[in-house]
Amino acid sequence: MSTAWTSRFALRTKGIRSSAIRELLKLTEKPGMISFAGGLPSPEAFPIQRFEEACHKVLAQKAARALQYSATEGYEPLRELIANNMARYGIEARVENVMITSGSQQALDLIGKLFVNRGDRVLVEAPTYLGALQAFNIYGADYISVPVDDDGLRTDLLEKPLRTGPKFMYVLPNFQNPAGTTLSEGRRHELVLMADRYGIPIVEDDPYGQLRYEGEHIPPLVVLDRENLRRDDGYSIGNVIYLSTFSKTLAPGIRLGWIVAPPEIITKLVQLKQGTDLHTSTFNQYVAYEVARDGFLDQHVKFIRQLYRERRDVMLEALRESFPPEVTWTHPHGGLFLWVTLPRDLDMQEVLQSAIHENVAFVPGDAFYAHPELESRQHMRLNFSSATPEQIREGINRLSLAVKSQLLLNYA
Amino acid sequence: MSTAWTSRFALRTKGIRSSAIRELLKLTEKPGMISFAGGLPSPEAFPIQRFEEACHKVLAQKAARALQYSATEGYEPLRELIANNMARYGIEARVENVMITSGSQQALDLIGKLFVNRGDRVLVEAPTYLGALQAFNIYGADYISVPVDDDGLRTDLLEKPLRTGPKFMYVLPNFQNPAGTTLSEGRRHELVLMADRYGIPIVEDDPYGQLRYEGEHIPPLVVLDRENLRRDDGYSIGNVIYLSTFSKTLAPGIRLGWIVAPPEIITKLVQLKQGTDLHTSTFNQYVAYEVARDGFLDQHVKFIRQLYRERRDVMLEALRESFPPEVTWTHPHGGLFLWVTLPRDLDMQEVLQSAIHENVAFVPGDAFYAHPELESRQHMRLNFSSATPEQIREGINRLSLAVKSQLLLNYA
Repeated sequence: MSTAWTSRFALRTKGIRSSAIRELLKLTEKPGMISFAGGLPSPEAFPIQRFEEACHKVLAQKAARALQYSATEGYEPLRELIANNMARYGIEARVENVMITSGSQQALDLIGKLFVNRGDRVLVEAPTYLGALQAFNIYGADYISVPVDDDGLRTDLLEKPLRTGPKFMYVLPNFQNPAGTTLSEGRRHELVLMADRYGIPIVEDDPYGQLRYEGEHIPPLVVLDRENLRRDDGYSIGNVIYLSTFSKTLAPGIRLGWIVAPPEIITKLVQLKQGTDLHTSTFNQYVAYEVARDGFLDQHVKFIRQLYRERRDVMLEALRESFPPEVTWTHPHGGLFLWVTLPRDLDMQEVLQSAIHENVAFVPGDAFYAHPELESRQHMRLNFSSATPEQIREGINRLSLAVKSQLLLNYA
Repeated sequence: MSTAWTSRFALRTKGIRSSAIRELLKLTEKPGMISFAGGLPSPEAFPIQRFEEACHKVLAQKAARALQYSATEGYEPLRELIANNMARYGIEARVENVMITSGSQQALDLIGKLFVNRGDRVLVEAPTYLGALQAFNIYGADYISVPVDDDGLRTDLLEKPLRTGPKFMYVLPNFQNPAGTTLSEGRRHELVLMADRYGIPIVEDDPYGQLRYEGEHIPPLVVLDRENLRRDDGYSIGNVIYLSTFSKTLAPGIRLGWIVAPPEIITKLVQLKQGTDLHTSTFNQYVAYEVARDGFLDQHVKFIRQLYRERRDVMLEALRESFPPEVTWTHPHGGLFLWVTLPRDLDMQEVLQSAIHENVAFVPGDAFYAHPELESRQHMRLNFSSATPEQIREGINRLSLAVKSQLLLNYA
């Protein structure tokens, strides 16, 4: 082809390539494959009937506005509904603190656009959400990785990295993707205090917060931070930018997420979003509002919790029954994923090939590390939301065969 | 507020601010205001009934897929429909040449992301589309401006700027926003030849191409470029990236645009889009496919042409009847805008204030220049798609009063 274009790529595109997961997901389309590799919600969790009523109502009553260009910050009734809904999780936000994004991925892109200069360091968890790395990579971010254990981010290891002055911390406190772990309440308090002491703000990514299957709700960082700042000096706005989404509670195909931040930050993000996609689909915002309103969202979330709790339990039980004792896994209190740790001497690419041979798929853990050379090679991420309980039992059985055959080979 | 965030903005955000138009549009919400300032399609042009049938069908038959995550490059049947539809405008594209974007604005953002390093120069028309400047500004673009006349971009002035090696040219050949002018066929041939000779590729932005109200269709640059390259050396892919959208033919509120480019470029853009918003709303893509299919799009475009042709004619007639002889304007063969040139000694901000006093609004021309200090101060952009014929007559009458009062003050 003509090199008129290909010789002209910007520096920022160096090293951008399709994610390993994307390539892997193509393999999982093979017939008979049971895939724990994706992160898909179950279609059974989509409130289809309610969507149908909402589309009908919006087009019958508000089509002239719902199909038109609209405000970059989002549809005001939807922003208000989000603010009210978050209030029951303790997050005090007014409409002017909330902006709508084209999925939570766009929130990450806009945060990268607004804050990351080439070479800026972002403090991330190890492991962390792959999509955040992809979003920040484009703006030339470097990373400081701090490990996660069963209680989430290791705050005892934070002081030294914070002293080096990263641009911000990116943290997933609830049922983390990929590890499934939850940041304990004690560590949350520590984290917001340290953020304040060292002047390093926090991006709190909370796509799964409403999907808790056991244990008590723990206050989000954005809440603890405001309490802390208010006690100290009366500020009502703070160090934490909070992100969430309708992808796991209504449907991902409508691409609706949101950002909660101080108004000064929202104003800047809105200006950047104008040049990025003008605004998020007006129609989808009107429809989501009609779907979620009048308490439906809360009621539907209860249904999803039941659906996924069962699948999580089936997967945990199947793992206990069929996996060899050298293998351990997390016990997620919510969300979509659990994280399996295999003996260090196994080669995960070989485990994956063996699994695919058995018609079952997972994502090897190294995809989720900013620095994959460190301690990242013995994990697999398993999704428990998209397969049925029967498929989960069968898939975990197949996976155990793959793991056992690799262990045998290894010891042979 | 805490400065933890506000002290951390990236360099690229310097000087990004809300557009003047955005501020202006707020004024036009005043009751009784007739606004020619926006660029809104008429709600009468939205095929609401067809949308309703499409939503019903998609949710009844395909909800599990339509509400789910989907491929970054877009819904394949929609990409195929777009490829087939463009074929009748001479654009030969296969599915792998087409990717779906979240409105055409996202296409501009992705092009900026893929190609623009800080300080790179982009050759743009003077005037040009404001949204493109906003998108490229974020990546630190500088600009070379080449004037437009009644036959579009002045190709006779191109050689010297092309010799200085801009990254690419950004051109709106059909019924340009804001000027309403169309690039003549002769100049299109010249432009693709020069692009090839100097190795400077072209981004062809064509949101209005299907909305032609008089004259013959002129082949897009992407078509002429391929003919040229094929004749020269047999390449079937070329120097032109082509952008279009459903915003003016179906509805802007569904945020669906597309990019046509060689597969190597599409691959890169898809990788960038993954980190930007994962993918465009699956639901909207399924719905748009059901709306547009079976020839509906073509039939509906005919209806829109009629609707807007009348409004354009009413505006042209009203201008002829009420505007003083010192004022001239373009005669657009399509699109949504015309461009009025006032005597040089008028202060457009005062004309605008006087117009708003008369309850009519427009956008002053300087918003549309990369270098607004040059010859940009005596224009106004008028939109003729969103007001009714009665409102257009009344609005142009009010505007003529505002202009005349300023001319009088000026001569006094």
